[in-house]
Amino acid sequence: MKPSGIITLTTDFGLSDPYVAMMKGVILSINPRAELVDITHHISAGAIRQASTMIHETFSFFPKGTIHLGVVDPGVGSDRRLIALLADKHYFVGPDNGLFSPVIGDDPTSRIYNLKEKHFFLPHVTHTFHGREIIAPVSAHISLGVPLERMGPAIHDPIRLDIPVPRQKAGVLYGQITHVDNFGNCATNIRKNILIRFLESAQPVIEVGQLNIDHLSLTYSDVDGGQPLALSNSSGWLEIAVNMGRASEYLGVNPDELIGTVVKVSRSS
Amino acid sequence: MKPSGIITLTTDFGLSDPYVAMMKGVILSINPRAELVDITHHISAGAIRQASTMIHETFSFFPKGTIHLGVVDPGVGSDRRLIALLADKHYFVGPDNGLFSPVIGDDPTSRIYNLKEKHFFLPHVTHTFHGREIIAPVSAHISLGVPLERMGPAIHDPIRLDIPVPRQKAGVLYGQITHVDNFGNCATNIRKNILIRFLESAQPVIEVGQLNIDHLSLTYSDVDGGQPLALSNSSGWLEIAVNMGRASEYLGVNPDELIGTVVKVSRSS
Amino acid sequence: MKPSGIITLTTDFGLSDPYVAMMKGVILSINPRAELVDITHHISAGAIRQASTMIHETFSFFPKGTIHLGVVDPGVGSDRRLIALLADKHYFVGPDNGLFSPVIGDDPTSRIYNLKEKHFFLPHVTHTFHGREIIAPVSAHISLGVPLERMGPAIHDPIRLDIPVPRQKAGVLYGQITHVDNFGNCATNIRKNILIRFLESAQPVIEVGQLNIDHLSLTYSDVDGGQPLALSNSSGWLEIAVNMGRASEYLGVNPDELIGTVVKVSRSS
Repeated sequence: MKPSGIITLTTDFGLSDPYVAMMKGVILSINPRAELVDITHHISAGAIRQASTMIHETFSFFPKGTIHLGVVDPGVGSDRRLIALLADKHYFVGPDNGLFSPVIGDDPTSRIYNLKEKHFFLPHVTHTFHGREIIAPVSAHISLGVPLERMGPAIHDPIRLDIPVPRQKAGVLYGQITHVDNFGNCATNIRKNILIRFLESAQPVIEVGQLNIDHLSLTYSDVDGGQPLALSNSSGWLEIAVNMGRASEYLGVNPDELIGTVVKVSRSS
Repeated sequence: MKPSGIITLTTDFGLSDPYVAMMKGVILSINPRAELVDITHHISAGAIRQASTMIHETFSFFPKGTIHLGVVDPGVGSDRRLIALLADKHYFVGPDNGLFSPVIGDDPTSRIYNLKEKHFFLPHVTHTFHGREIIAPVSAHISLGVPLERMGPAIHDPIRLDIPVPRQKAGVLYGQITHVDNFGNCATNIRKNILIRFLESAQPVIEVGQLNIDHLSLTYSDVDGGQPLALSNSSGWLEIAVNMGRASEYLGVNPDELIGTVVKVSRSS
Repeated sequence: MKPSGIITLTTDFGLSDPYVAMMKGVILSINPRAELVDITHHISAGAIRQASTMIHETFSFFPKGTIHLGVVDPGVGSDRRLIALLADKHYFVGPDNGLFSPVIGDDPTSRIYNLKEKHFFLPHVTHTFHGREIIAPVSAHISLGVPLERMGPAIHDPIRLDIPVPRQKAGVLYGQITHVDNFGNCATNIRKNILIRFLESAQPVIEVGQLNIDHLSLTYSDVDGGQPLALSNSSGWLEIAVNMGRASEYLGVNPDELIGTVVKVSRSS
């Protein structure tokens, strides 16, 4: 797969420290023509699952051959492996801690390599910032066309995340809230196709926190301002929202407990 | 107008979600050479007027032919129109909800088109993310030189914002605070030329919240650290500031009520 | 030194206002091929020392000939000077207020010029935003290859920061916390080589706040999750951290007083 020249970056570094810029400097020192695009640097510290979802939902909007660098790496300096892989015609480089688990799950033909070839690292590798000294320079070399297999041995047992899936029991579909976005919209782990198959032609009754919603909307403005709604969001997940408002505040759930809150869908009788 | 190759982005998406990156991926998939520059993604959710001011004050610092994409779109999926326009030798693409109202107001010759030509959209258009599926790809096509008139029919009735202007009554000029910046500086809607015309050669007395200021400064350090001042800021607005401090905290106004707070200017006797 | 074409930006502007974008627009209007990389815009308002450390620790990861623009400029509009300099084969442009003091300190051969040549400024210079009207356009012209000496007269007395250094007294090494990063890791002003020389072959006892640590770790995961540790961080400073946690909360020090908190190192007996 010919590299697109674009490298995306996803980390839990935030934007107040110079860590992201250091990685960009390393990349541009190796490939001055690399095009760098931030996905986000506001992943919660060490939140591998959150980052894995972001990368998974975003990568395919970039051109084929784009390199997606991910550094959410609480095990830095331990014996956790670093990997580079090709899946769905995109490259991914980061720790082998499940960060790319959804991507690998989607593409059983993905080829995965353990980063071992020091020739592609910075000369000095610290114990605490492999994003800068290994992941960034390896990504830059891949963007220049160095084949993945030159990075180290192939591996076949990458770490897989245990991602909670919706369950059906006694005619009820149980999912959970997985993400609260900038608008307070609460995305769930219930895919549109799962929901449609479950509902057949019935209307849903959706219960979450202190809220009951009895039909699906197409868009936010289908209800009045301040009113709650449920819809299938732009990434294909069932989402609870409030038009011109914040569902995250409307649900009556402790903000710290929003992620993981049960969402119960039944068929309207 | 030949496109400059630069596309700026202004949204209320924040930087924690992958929405901005998705739009950038879409743009780079269509025009891999596009140069992307963020204006800001920290517009308050749905704050059209705030975004319109940001875009209006910033666009002219970019080269002519730059495309300014704006997505503050609380009406996404409703029957609100999407538009692309050329004004003051810059392109603007976004919802027809007043976001470009100040730009259009400045250039009565601006040509405005309703985005209707699906050929320039992503193949799959959701009900909730037209920024990604329409505004981003249309911007990318314009950056490649596709003429605006190919995007859809011309329109002549864009939505105009009702922007509050200063009023003069009984020898007093009444304005209001319109923006509080990162330094706590409070910008008003009183333009330097309006102020000068009002004052003639008199010194002003400026009242806002619990504060009285009796002359204009040229820069922050004209007063001692911690002291309040008024000046004409770098965008040409009367601004209340505190040298080495935060006017937003000094004024004695409830932070939630800062925007819209009355600023009263009279002539020193 | 041939410019690399890259310009980095470090400011205290935040990302909510359009100030950074205005500077980027100015740069791209002069040099449309400039590659712009943010170091950070989240420097605390007016925190020159904080910014100087960020720039100093980050610049060398970029290619030689990169231009590092810094705008932390509380004295804007006063008689403070603006400068451009070449040190360690990198360019630096900003106010002469100590922002580049560590860089200049490292390279006694650095050549420093006072920005006086208005030909390289924007035509209209305000009293409050020299970052936009002087520092940005001068940086852009340097990136096009204009020699530094054309910017104005050489100066030899740049402002130097008084940076606190560790002190040794009665067999104890006293340093202080200088930075708390996004992970709550607390970096000190004690360099690895200073520490090693002080310890000779003894193990350290490190005291800070209510915490005692009796050895050095190599990486975070050397201790159990939630446990404190000390290590030499990726920038070479002694750092107090908590594996999978936040040292800044663990130390029992008032968050407002973390910067400057004394860190005491003695030799284990």
